[in-house]
Amino acid sequence: MKPGDERFMRRALRLARKGIGKTSPNPAVGAVIVKNGKVMASGWHRKAGLPHAEIEALRSAKGDVRGGTLFVTLEPCVHFGKTPPCVDAVIKAGIKRVVIGAKDPNPLVAGKGVRKLKRAGMEVDSGVLADDCRAINRPFEKFIATKTPYVTLKLASTLDGRIAIATGESRWITSEESRKAVHRLRSETDAVMVGVNTLLRDDPELTVRLVRGKDPLKIVLDSSFKTPLAAKAFKDPGRLVIFTGRGASAAKIKKARALGARVVVVPAKNNGLDIRRVLKELGKLEVSSLLVEGGGTLSASLVKAGLVDRFVFFISPKLIGADGRPSIGSLGLKKLSAAPVLKDVVVKRSGCDIVVEGMPVH
Amino acid sequence: MKPGDERFMRRALRLARKGIGKTSPNPAVGAVIVKNGKVMASGWHRKAGLPHAEIEALRSAKGDVRGGTLFVTLEPCVHFGKTPPCVDAVIKAGIKRVVIGAKDPNPLVAGKGVRKLKRAGMEVDSGVLADDCRAINRPFEKFIATKTPYVTLKLASTLDGRIAIATGESRWITSEESRKAVHRLRSETDAVMVGVNTLLRDDPELTVRLVRGKDPLKIVLDSSFKTPLAAKAFKDPGRLVIFTGRGASAAKIKKARALGARVVVVPAKNNGLDIRRVLKELGKLEVSSLLVEGGGTLSASLVKAGLVDRFVFFISPKLIGADGRPSIGSLGLKKLSAAPVLKDVVVKRSGCDIVVEGMPVH
Repeated sequence: MKPGDERFMRRALRLARKGIGKTSPNPAVGAVIVKNGKVMASGWHRKAGLPHAEIEALRSAKGDVRGGTLFVTLEPCVHFGKTPPCVDAVIKAGIKRVVIGAKDPNPLVAGKGVRKLKRAGMEVDSGVLADDCRAINRPFEKFIATKTPYVTLKLASTLDGRIAIATGESRWITSEESRKAVHRLRSETDAVMVGVNTLLRDDPELTVRLVRGKDPLKIVLDSSFKTPLAAKAFKDPGRLVIFTGRGASAAKIKKARALGARVVVVPAKNNGLDIRRVLKELGKLEVSSLLVEGGGTLSASLVKAGLVDRFVFFISPKLIGADGRPSIGSLGLKKLSAAPVLKDVVVKRSGCDIVVEGMPVH
Repeated sequence: MKPGDERFMRRALRLARKGIGKTSPNPAVGAVIVKNGKVMASGWHRKAGLPHAEIEALRSAKGDVRGGTLFVTLEPCVHFGKTPPCVDAVIKAGIKRVVIGAKDPNPLVAGKGVRKLKRAGMEVDSGVLADDCRAINRPFEKFIATKTPYVTLKLASTLDGRIAIATGESRWITSEESRKAVHRLRSETDAVMVGVNTLLRDDPELTVRLVRGKDPLKIVLDSSFKTPLAAKAFKDPGRLVIFTGRGASAAKIKKARALGARVVVVPAKNNGLDIRRVLKELGKLEVSSLLVEGGGTLSASLVKAGLVDRFVFFISPKLIGADGRPSIGSLGLKKLSAAPVLKDVVVKRSGCDIVVEGMPVH
C-alpha cells in the first residue's frame, strides 16, 4: 500500500455507493484512475447490462491513462457476462498499477482477476478499505453464496415496542422523514415483503413514492390467500408475488394470475408458510435483497428461524402501551441468554425518531 | 450582559452540577467571584444545612473581593432558612456587580434578591445561561411549586419493548454500564420506587452499589402488602417506605413497622393505589425527586395519569418477543393521536445499549 491509496479508494467507494440498489444482481462498484497524483478519470457501475465501473472510468478519461493507477472497490472480473471481462480492458489501456478494495465474493472467481493482472506484469495491491468495500455489497455477497436474498427486517415502533394501537391504527407512528427513509430502503431493494395481517390492516401500496427511485417487487405471505383482489398491492400486478399455501382457493389463485400477479404455492411449516422455501423461491426470481416490513408475526418467524441479515428499527418517541400490537411476535424464549442480540449497532436520528441498525449475532 | 459573562457562568454551572443529588430539598447552585478578569474565588452548595454557594465562594476568596463580580447560577436568597440570607453577605462583602443565571423558582421570593441587590447600589444582570441554570434544578422547581416530587421514569427494555422474558427472568437485559448509570441516577435522587410485582420478581436492593453515592429512600407500592418481610428491601429498613391499601393485614403492617420500615396506608384508585396521593405523601416526607424503576403496571399508571416529568429508557439491542413482559402496561388508547409523546429527546450510548431521555409533551 502507498500513501494516498486510502484517499483514492474512499473516492472510488463514494462512486460505488451511487449504484447501491440499482445494479442488482450485480454488485455496486466504483473506480478512479490516478496519474501523477491526479484523478484523471472515474466511473461507477450504474445498472446490470451497462459497463462495469472500470470501463466507465476508462471511457471517461480525459488524456492518456497509460502508466496510471486504477483504484477499484471490487476485484475486476475475468469472465464474459453481459459485458466482456474488465481485466482485459485494464491491461489493454496500459494501466501500470491496480489497487483493489474487496476480493470477488464469488469463491469460483475470487483471486482470478488479481492473478491475471499480475501475469500481465502489473503491480497489484488488494485489501485497501476492504471492509468498507465489502459492506456495500453484503446483499450481493450473500446472494452469490446462497442463492437466497439478503433479508433486511424493518420495524417502525414506539419506544415501548408497539407498531399499532389495539384497534390496528398505525398511521403514522413514525415521522415523515422516517417514512421517506423507508421509501429509500425500498428503492434500494429488489423486493419488499409483508405478512397478510399487515396487508389486511394497512392496505399498503408497497411502492416508492416519497423519494425518487425504482419500485421493488411486492411480496405478500398469505397462507390461506386472504388478500383481496382489490387490495392496493394489486395495482401494477406485474410486480406482485403472493406466496400461499396448499389450501388456498384455486379459483382465487386463477383470478389473481389472470390479473397479472404471480402466485407461488409453498408448503406449510410451524402454523405458517415455510419461510426458507419462500426465500429460495425468491432467489429463483433473482431477488438478491429483500426488505421485510412486518408485521409482528412475520418478523418473529424470521427472527426465530435466524433468517434476518440486518435490522433497521425506526423508533418513535411515543408510547402506546401493552394493549397495542407488538413489533415482534412471540419468540418462546426459555432463557434470557437465548434472546437474539444485535451487533455493529449504529444509532441515528430521523426527524424526531431514532433509527437503530444492526446485524444479528449468530 | 458583558463579554465573558457566559464563560464565567459556565464555570459556576460546572460547580453547581457537583451538588446535584446532594442538596435536596435545596437546589444545586454554583458561584464564582471574578475581579479584573480573574477568578478569585468559587464555591458550590454541598448539602442542605451547609453554606450556600455564594457564602462558600466568599469564604474561599484569596485576597480582597471588593469591587469584584459574583456569578451565581441561581438568584441569591433573601430569607432566613437554616442559614442567613446570602444577599446580605454579598452586599457586606463589597461585591460591585452580580450576574445571575436563573431566577428563584419559588414564586413567593422570585425577584426579591435582585431588588435588594439593586437597592444596595449593585449592578445586576439576570438570565445568563438561564435555561441551563434552570435545567439542573427541575426537581427543586417542581417540588417548590407543587410540594410533590419530580418523577423520573426509568425503563430498561429490549428493542421490542420487553423488560423480562415470560418466566420473569430479567437479569440482565442491559449492560453493566447501564446498570451503573441507573445506580448514578439513584444516588442523585431522593427516593426510588418499584411496584410490588417487580419487587416480588427481582427482589431488588434499591441501593447504590455500582458507583459511589448516597442511598435513596426505597418506596414500594403494594396495595395488598404482599412484600415479604424477608425481602432485600427490608435491609436498612429505616430507608424503606411501603404504600399499601386499606385491606392490608394490620398484623403485617405492625411487624413491618416494628422492623423499622414506614408503612403508609392510602386509598385505592383504578385497581391500584391512588398514585397522586402517594406523591403527596412523599412530598410530606421531603422527597423532592423520585426515580420510578417499573414495572409495566406502575409505569403505565404513571403515564396514564400524566405524572411522569422525565423518561429515561435504557434500550438493549436485544429481542425478547411478544411473550415477554411489556415495559409499559396497557394505556387503553382509542386513537393513535392520543399516544403520549416525548419532547427534547436526547439519545446517548451506554455500553452496547441506547439511552433515550425526554420529557412528556403535555
